[in-house]
Amino acid sequence: MTTPLSGIRILDFTRYQQGPFASVMLADMGAEVIKVEEPDGGGEYGRRLWKERDGFTGFWEACNRGKKSVCIDLRKPEGRDAALDLGATCDVVIENFRAGTMDAWGLGYEEFRARNPRIIYGQATGWGTKGPLASYPSFDQISQAYSGFAQHSGGGPGCRPEIPYPGLADQSGAMNFAFGIMTALFARERTGLGQRVEVSLLGTQLALQSPELVHTMHTGKERERAFRAAPIIGHYECSDGRWVMIVGVDPKYWPRVMRALGIEELIDDPRFARGYARQENRHELEPLMEKAFRAMDSAHWLARLRDADVPAAIVQEYAEVATDEQALANGYIVEQQHPRFGLMRTVGLHVQLSGTPGEIGAPAPDLGRDTNDVLRAAGFSEDRLGALAAAGVILQS
Amino acid sequence: MTTPLSGIRILDFTRYQQGPFASVMLADMGAEVIKVEEPDGGGEYGRRLWKERDGFTGFWEACNRGKKSVCIDLRKPEGRDAALDLGATCDVVIENFRAGTMDAWGLGYEEFRARNPRIIYGQATGWGTKGPLASYPSFDQISQAYSGFAQHSGGGPGCRPEIPYPGLADQSGAMNFAFGIMTALFARERTGLGQRVEVSLLGTQLALQSPELVHTMHTGKERERAFRAAPIIGHYECSDGRWVMIVGVDPKYWPRVMRALGIEELIDDPRFARGYARQENRHELEPLMEKAFRAMDSAHWLARLRDADVPAAIVQEYAEVATDEQALANGYIVEQQHPRFGLMRTVGLHVQLSGTPGEIGAPAPDLGRDTNDVLRAAGFSEDRLGALAAAGVILQS
Repeated sequence: MTTPLSGIRILDFTRYQQGPFASVMLADMGAEVIKVEEPDGGGEYGRRLWKERDGFTGFWEACNRGKKSVCIDLRKPEGRDAALDLGATCDVVIENFRAGTMDAWGLGYEEFRARNPRIIYGQATGWGTKGPLASYPSFDQISQAYSGFAQHSGGGPGCRPEIPYPGLADQSGAMNFAFGIMTALFARERTGLGQRVEVSLLGTQLALQSPELVHTMHTGKERERAFRAAPIIGHYECSDGRWVMIVGVDPKYWPRVMRALGIEELIDDPRFARGYARQENRHELEPLMEKAFRAMDSAHWLARLRDADVPAAIVQEYAEVATDEQALANGYIVEQQHPRFGLMRTVGLHVQLSGTPGEIGAPAPDLGRDTNDVLRAAGFSEDRLGALAAAGVILQS
Repeated sequence: MTTPLSGIRILDFTRYQQGPFASVMLADMGAEVIKVEEPDGGGEYGRRLWKERDGFTGFWEACNRGKKSVCIDLRKPEGRDAALDLGATCDVVIENFRAGTMDAWGLGYEEFRARNPRIIYGQATGWGTKGPLASYPSFDQISQAYSGFAQHSGGGPGCRPEIPYPGLADQSGAMNFAFGIMTALFARERTGLGQRVEVSLLGTQLALQSPELVHTMHTGKERERAFRAAPIIGHYECSDGRWVMIVGVDPKYWPRVMRALGIEELIDDPRFARGYARQENRHELEPLMEKAFRAMDSAHWLARLRDADVPAAIVQEYAEVATDEQALANGYIVEQQHPRFGLMRTVGLHVQLSGTPGEIGAPAPDLGRDTNDVLRAAGFSEDRLGALAAAGVILQS
């Protein structure tokens, strides 16, 4: 039994989040991920985001666990050559700079391909590599704004746009990026061909919203975005101040919800009996349901709704999720030992394979921890390593 | 040149969104996706979601393009046998019922594996297959609520929780699911082994939020969630009522933004000159920036910010995205012919491979359009097809 990506080597130039979380997913599946960082400014900027007084950063840890850190100054010719030689020993190169940056540094797809025609070059941009905005910088919130997500999340056209969750475009972009890399690795296994894989924040955001976009492209209008999607698809406050979410999307749930709430007289009420009528008369129905929920506490309602097999859940905050029995039982939250911070909890494997399971890697590495080991293993002589170190082109921590 | 998944056959029992969008992604890459629907109630329930007067539904189209539709009554023994025989000709079986449903129908992993040991069985649940909630139903908003996303998006603990975007857990879950299937297909190419792949709404939501969760698990507290992440990471209203988003996450952007806004006197103001101070004094800085933005229109500010190479974008609504030049230039929005609705726009390929590109499939199929063709190609005799049709077990439209 081995991991699905054992033996796959990835040279990882990614920064911030869209690229780095994609390579965490590949590292979780057993790939050897060699993160290249520059000595200038103390390595990748993600090391400094969300930094606490004790030096811990959840952002950096979540986006870089399971990787090796190799520190090379890419702006010097010897550094560029070292990166290209390292790439010749790898299966995949990935980066998420704005389009053209790696080419300008002499580190574009063609350079790596010339040394290794089987290389897969994964490129995650902000805007795609074509079109008038291709060479502009982008970030997560730029893409949430431009793609329609911020406006729709804020309530639709005319409302104040919102960024409900910074990092959403990056994290979903990373999942899409990892899918693209795996698709190219699969194709290479069958054809022997390397190739370039492109994703972008914009492209992934449109895919994420494709049902809404296809709707708007047909009808010319955005669908309504309300606090609750429907009277029985939404969350209600209970007497203890906690909120219970119910999702009664299938018509079979309507009578079950009413019975669980003890307002079964509404089941056949002509204002609410059918889905369309319920939506039309939601401003009459929702206050009745709000009143019912407010009469008892969340534990009471959750038990009644679950007894009736209605999809229901309490609205939780992160401190609760961190010790949640369901998350722990499935290995979504696990413990690991951190060399500096001791025993810590982290997010576990969320894609679980029965025959060749992945395994979560060690906590995120210190800058340049693996420089010498990785370069030696790639065939760099001691003379070359010494010269590179003396010239300040590489750094070993 | 061929598609990356040409020759890969997927038997697709998925419903609603988490499963169906995953198989759209695989169909986009060239897999043959055979969607199994039941005659009862007119096929998959997704056909009836968001239905317009003309019969069009953006939800169904976005989640089912490029697939074949085979209509089989799975609750009859002959229907179950037909599905198992069909599965024996496929590479992948995927489903997103609650845990245990397929097993109860005699359509679990073991049944398919007994007929084809190389089968990959992809299972997307709500809660994972272990733990106290494994057998409960779940949906998108349930997972947004339970995973901490609704509370954080609403402003954090103590605020009113929000579901900013219904479908978010499903669509990101689908991307993660597609990644899992590709990983198993890759592993099978190298080892010959079939296996089970599990993802869940809960697991994917935790992965999506892993930076925030890892932060909370270390510090015990959620990070602040405000309207703007920081004074220079957020959106501002301009004189024409439109909003411009800027993201100045790197320190180099601070002086550029101030100069672009014509308030360069703030660059060295001790209240704002450094990142920590800006965050501390944001309630002084943001009003000054709001006032600056409100003095001119969005086109003016966008041009000035882009000239300064500051990451910036207008906040768009879907009607604008639908005809957006950048999206069109990258093929993220494309046209296709629909047999019933004529020329339509849809979301194009968002994962783009240079050597073995995917291609978007035909619009979503009518119920049972491909029943006879698919079963014949799988070796079903005319006698068997006739008997199944006569008994109402299969349906050809």
